[in-house]
Amino acid sequence: MQKIRIGIVGYGNLGKGVEYSIRQNPDMELVAVFTRRSPESVQASVPVISLDEVEQYQDRIDVMLLCGGSATDLPIQGPAMAKLFNIVDSFDTHARIPEYFEEVNQQAEGNGHVAVISTGWDPGLFSLSRLLFEAVLPEGNAYTFWGKGVSQGHSDAIRRVPGVKNGVQYTIPSTEAVERVRNGENPELTTREKHLRECFVVAEEGADLKEIEKTIVNMPNYFADYDTVVNFINEEELKANHSGIPHGGLVLHSGVTGEGTTQVMEFGLNLGSNPEFTSSVLVAYARAVHRLSQRGERGARTVFDIPFGLLSPKSAEQLRAELL
Amino acid sequence: MQKIRIGIVGYGNLGKGVEYSIRQNPDMELVAVFTRRSPESVQASVPVISLDEVEQYQDRIDVMLLCGGSATDLPIQGPAMAKLFNIVDSFDTHARIPEYFEEVNQQAEGNGHVAVISTGWDPGLFSLSRLLFEAVLPEGNAYTFWGKGVSQGHSDAIRRVPGVKNGVQYTIPSTEAVERVRNGENPELTTREKHLRECFVVAEEGADLKEIEKTIVNMPNYFADYDTVVNFINEEELKANHSGIPHGGLVLHSGVTGEGTTQVMEFGLNLGSNPEFTSSVLVAYARAVHRLSQRGERGARTVFDIPFGLLSPKSAEQLRAELL
Repeated sequence: MQKIRIGIVGYGNLGKGVEYSIRQNPDMELVAVFTRRSPESVQASVPVISLDEVEQYQDRIDVMLLCGGSATDLPIQGPAMAKLFNIVDSFDTHARIPEYFEEVNQQAEGNGHVAVISTGWDPGLFSLSRLLFEAVLPEGNAYTFWGKGVSQGHSDAIRRVPGVKNGVQYTIPSTEAVERVRNGENPELTTREKHLRECFVVAEEGADLKEIEKTIVNMPNYFADYDTVVNFINEEELKANHSGIPHGGLVLHSGVTGEGTTQVMEFGLNLGSNPEFTSSVLVAYARAVHRLSQRGERGARTVFDIPFGLLSPKSAEQLRAELL
Repeated sequence: MQKIRIGIVGYGNLGKGVEYSIRQNPDMELVAVFTRRSPESVQASVPVISLDEVEQYQDRIDVMLLCGGSATDLPIQGPAMAKLFNIVDSFDTHARIPEYFEEVNQQAEGNGHVAVISTGWDPGLFSLSRLLFEAVLPEGNAYTFWGKGVSQGHSDAIRRVPGVKNGVQYTIPSTEAVERVRNGENPELTTREKHLRECFVVAEEGADLKEIEKTIVNMPNYFADYDTVVNFINEEELKANHSGIPHGGLVLHSGVTGEGTTQVMEFGLNLGSNPEFTSSVLVAYARAVHRLSQRGERGARTVFDIPFGLLSPKSAEQLRAELL
């Protein structure tokens, strides 16, 4: 059987995660990594090519996995790559998904490619759960909790506080709030009741720790609406205990059927590495994209349009016999 | 908009659950209930028709929901109804699914109908989770836990024990086993380690309770391989506290990415009523069946073949904007 030939655009944490994931999927092979950096400055297990030359690889790559960021990379790379290749990406600016979908769709549709956008876990597997849960239990309430996990945005915000040398922020779902939803109480939860924020901060020598803590916990948008705990630690401790990128969360749905029967559905992730997990999801969707393309389909899709059977290397017969 | 016209074959707990569920879905209407019993002996909110006359309803029903049992009803009704209608069923004899699929497919394909078989939660939503989890984390272990919930088969087995007047059996997942999986330990679990069985038994007057307990806990296939607790209660207590049909369970998958990073995925259900929840799943899949049929598709499908987008009454645009 011919392997599915994969390319990676962007070689940060996500791109490296894809490289690892491909090794766990014997029906795929990684062909090349494409970068905007100088290719000789990047070390990978496959050839590293300048993104300027990507067009020459149209016949050598079945699916291109876009591993750039949603703020500035994907709005440009998504449509540009969908013109040349079948693509999968993890565009995660929720509010801009509709317009991004249209732009990618235009290029994919017009050039005979298939594109799955906004996959990963949120958007992605969490979105699938939200859809499934409300379709099955239309009279009910949905709740999404994130964490325990590192928020890059909040960690960056801490590091911008005067007197802070380094820092990491964890988002933590409130155990009490989760239990209330699981018990079918259908609570109305404020922002403060849903999540806590815990910060591990390395201060510069001689900095005013009280002042740093006050600045963090009162920071508008980031911390003011939450209960926030600030822990001061040293650089060694930060490196030793807080250099991983764990994350995860829960989608919960509490609904009612019949004459007031409570039904609770739950999907949860506990991830040792957020980017490695996200890339594993992208790789599974690359398999689906390849199959759709081989059937002659074209245009943009989301996780909502892809049957799960296309994600597995197993045949439909095998799936029915082994997993149903 | 024209409503999706639904029929029910079989009016037990599952059929009644469908009747309730349709009321929560304004894009559907229940047309009739079909029964093998004498129609005048059955009370429903819609006309009750003898199953012998079902053929006359081909133009009046878009999707027929088969609510009979897997042991004797569905093996006959599945293919027979797929000849006449688009159908959805919950055939749950795992080992016989492949042959059942072929039989239904032959009738559906040959007569221009769409059939989704073996939906509900297991098989159904649990199967989807098993597939998704192993597709995303191919290097990992899957675990399915059932309960806490009533097992009809085990409850029946108790009631056949001499001296037993009535009884209910609960299957309960071991908290310790679940926690070990959640912690990424990848344990090898024996049958005894995964689930406990708890029985509530009403004994006949003068019966030997010690003897009943001994017979239950040593019963081969049903209880011998498990730790089983037997509680004797009176008939009033059984009615008051054990007449619901709760169930649920967990699908857990513990996998590894990158260089040994642990990733845990989980799907869980906590159901106040097993049949009411199962019927809510059937109804969501009826919507998908109707849409596939309107596109001109034909043949048998499983949950693995149906994109989640088809389960929701919302348009693709709405789903992308609201739920992705």
